[in-house]
Amino acid sequence: MSQSVLIHGALATMTHDHGPDGLVPDGALAMEGGRIAWVGPADDLPRAYAAWPQEDVEGRLVTPGLIDCHTHLVHGGHRAREFELRLKGASYADVAQAGGGIVATMTATRAADEAALVTGALPRLDALIAEGVTAVEVKSGYGLTVADEIKMLRAARRLENERPVRVSTTWLAAHAVPPEYRTRADAYLDDVVHAGLDQAYDAGLVDAVDAFCETIAFSPTQVARLFDHAQDLMVPIKVHAEQLSNQGGAMMAARRGALSADHLEHLDTEGIAAMAAGGTVAVLLPGAYYTLRDSQPPPVEALRAAGVPLAVATDCNPGSSPLTSPLLAMNMACTLFRLTPHEALAGMTRCAARALGLQDRMGTLEAGKRADLAVWSVEHPAELAYRLGFNPLHRRLFGGVA
Amino acid sequence: MSQSVLIHGALATMTHDHGPDGLVPDGALAMEGGRIAWVGPADDLPRAYAAWPQEDVEGRLVTPGLIDCHTHLVHGGHRAREFELRLKGASYADVAQAGGGIVATMTATRAADEAALVTGALPRLDALIAEGVTAVEVKSGYGLTVADEIKMLRAARRLENERPVRVSTTWLAAHAVPPEYRTRADAYLDDVVHAGLDQAYDAGLVDAVDAFCETIAFSPTQVARLFDHAQDLMVPIKVHAEQLSNQGGAMMAARRGALSADHLEHLDTEGIAAMAAGGTVAVLLPGAYYTLRDSQPPPVEALRAAGVPLAVATDCNPGSSPLTSPLLAMNMACTLFRLTPHEALAGMTRCAARALGLQDRMGTLEAGKRADLAVWSVEHPAELAYRLGFNPLHRRLFGGVA
Ligand SMILES: [Zn+2]
Ligand SMILES: [Zn+2]
Repeated sequence: MSQSVLIHGALATMTHDHGPDGLVPDGALAMEGGRIAWVGPADDLPRAYAAWPQEDVEGRLVTPGLIDCHTHLVHGGHRAREFELRLKGASYADVAQAGGGIVATMTATRAADEAALVTGALPRLDALIAEGVTAVEVKSGYGLTVADEIKMLRAARRLENERPVRVSTTWLAAHAVPPEYRTRADAYLDDVVHAGLDQAYDAGLVDAVDAFCETIAFSPTQVARLFDHAQDLMVPIKVHAEQLSNQGGAMMAARRGALSADHLEHLDTEGIAAMAAGGTVAVLLPGAYYTLRDSQPPPVEALRAAGVPLAVATDCNPGSSPLTSPLLAMNMACTLFRLTPHEALAGMTRCAARALGLQDRMGTLEAGKRADLAVWSVEHPAELAYRLGFNPLHRRLFGGVA
Repeated sequence: MSQSVLIHGALATMTHDHGPDGLVPDGALAMEGGRIAWVGPADDLPRAYAAWPQEDVEGRLVTPGLIDCHTHLVHGGHRAREFELRLKGASYADVAQAGGGIVATMTATRAADEAALVTGALPRLDALIAEGVTAVEVKSGYGLTVADEIKMLRAARRLENERPVRVSTTWLAAHAVPPEYRTRADAYLDDVVHAGLDQAYDAGLVDAVDAFCETIAFSPTQVARLFDHAQDLMVPIKVHAEQLSNQGGAMMAARRGALSADHLEHLDTEGIAAMAAGGTVAVLLPGAYYTLRDSQPPPVEALRAAGVPLAVATDCNPGSSPLTSPLLAMNMACTLFRLTPHEALAGMTRCAARALGLQDRMGTLEAGKRADLAVWSVEHPAELAYRLGFNPLHRRLFGGVA
């Protein structure tokens, strides 16, 4: 079994949601068989590990590998032309008429086969990996037929064969009502979302079930029925909620013990209380807030005061957040949402793991966890969120291997 | 003399400030001795060039190399700790008391020798180069003594020896009044800014003279006297103006034929008219606007209507814009300032060249210009500004050489 020790690292163990980074200034980290065996001050490294091969990281910062817990990484096409049209003054209706919007991505995703979806996603995944990501969640939601939704999740799973990264797959058929079901949302839910969930589950493709709970998508009642179905299958749930208006989706999901509620710009006090009570993680997505030029940030102070764990993710998607930089997501979480740099880092490590239900195996530097690590050429953890468009990654280990 | 041809590129020639990209969909570009010899449709490639070695870029987008026309790339230290303190609620006064702000960077810059400044700047320069930058402007302004300002510009010049890039150096001793001259700004101007300018000029270190014209820095009258001095030396001028308030600095500079006026959030109608009349480029710096959470964007529509060329730059600096991604600057110029993707690209090519007075040799794909090129793995020029934190650069040529 492979054994090694990282020595002389500044270890940001991330053992607390808020507060300090759990920093061990001159630390050592012993790894065996892809897991962390021991973490602590270099001077205290037990004799048993002292004989293992050592790598001196010369004072560099060592963090858990970054976890991007909310992405739409797998999709066909891009929407650069729509970006251009909107900047030239086109309205959303104009864009839709020109074939833009989510329907454009749906059409391109349906047209792509599984291999093409993998090929298209790899450059985006590589951008995440280049900034220290070791685990990424990927949602379906642009196929909007049973076969195309399943194709998306198969492509997502295949990313694990192509790159050293952990992929969590989320069934998000309840992302939008496709044109062929316009005005028949409940029929879409029955025919595609529910029926497809059983099929995708049987194929082992569903790590979680998600839904877009919004006036332009699905109501809390519709989503609650889907979540009941998911919970019959013992599959964890999460929700896109309160992004454009306060529908109570986060509260509904939190009361059902959802792993996370995501976006949350319009979350109210009752929703915050329900999330705190339910142990539901708030996943903040500043890339979408920035791109949509939103002006109401999520209620970060109240979430913090209520003790709700705050995660941060790229929301990588071709429309509202074509973002493939976890460090930029962290900067935006600080600059636009006023997270502290520590909270932003916890948001892409410890709290992101929890948003995926994987806190037993990743997200902190602790004995027993996977040896998924990022080593950074910086002096202080705050530097990770401080810079814009700069990548100080020195090296990345996935299961102890570079 | 080295001769070669790029064939089958989508050439964004950037021959117009606004409007289309001057796109040649299936183009060829012949290079000889570091310069562009011919540009046009691949089918029209003259026989004389057809025998030169060809590189097929397979439909990729070819643009002029990007030009970052406003940076403070050379400096000591960083201000991540200050970023953290401010997010934890510290006021600017608190930060200053904790030794932060521009004084922190001044202290670190004074403490660094020339070699250390070069070493510190190289990772930032490498980040720019990795996204296709072939020319970068670098300002002094953190030394604030004659010797330290000159040291900064010597370090900036040395970057040209370290990397294949063109560096323009700007004398910005009039950036701030250092603590030892507090309440004696005119003495500082005489002792350091004016006296140092003559020395730096004699050493061949001054491509332009810049000043921060603002209530917290220098008045239009003080800056005008400096510009008279610069113009006695036949050195072009530029100005940091109207960032925090409308002081009339841009108008004053434009009337003296300034190359550019930069920031401009508070520019008024009179200032716009003066810039249009003076042929002064508006350099937009969305990274600082974003980081400072400013809410008043520069008057882009009025500048566009007046025909003022719009450049875009990173403003890379350790305090208000720790930004080293030209593509992110372009995205921010679109998202935050409503430039079109074409204007953003012109802002980092054609118009940026003009902001440096180098439009005779760079900034467009035209015969006679330097063969400074960026080849991108994208289908459409709008994709460059559309994505966030993604680098599609395929390859970069500087004087025809990779
Ligand atoms: Zn989403
Ligand atoms: Zn500046």
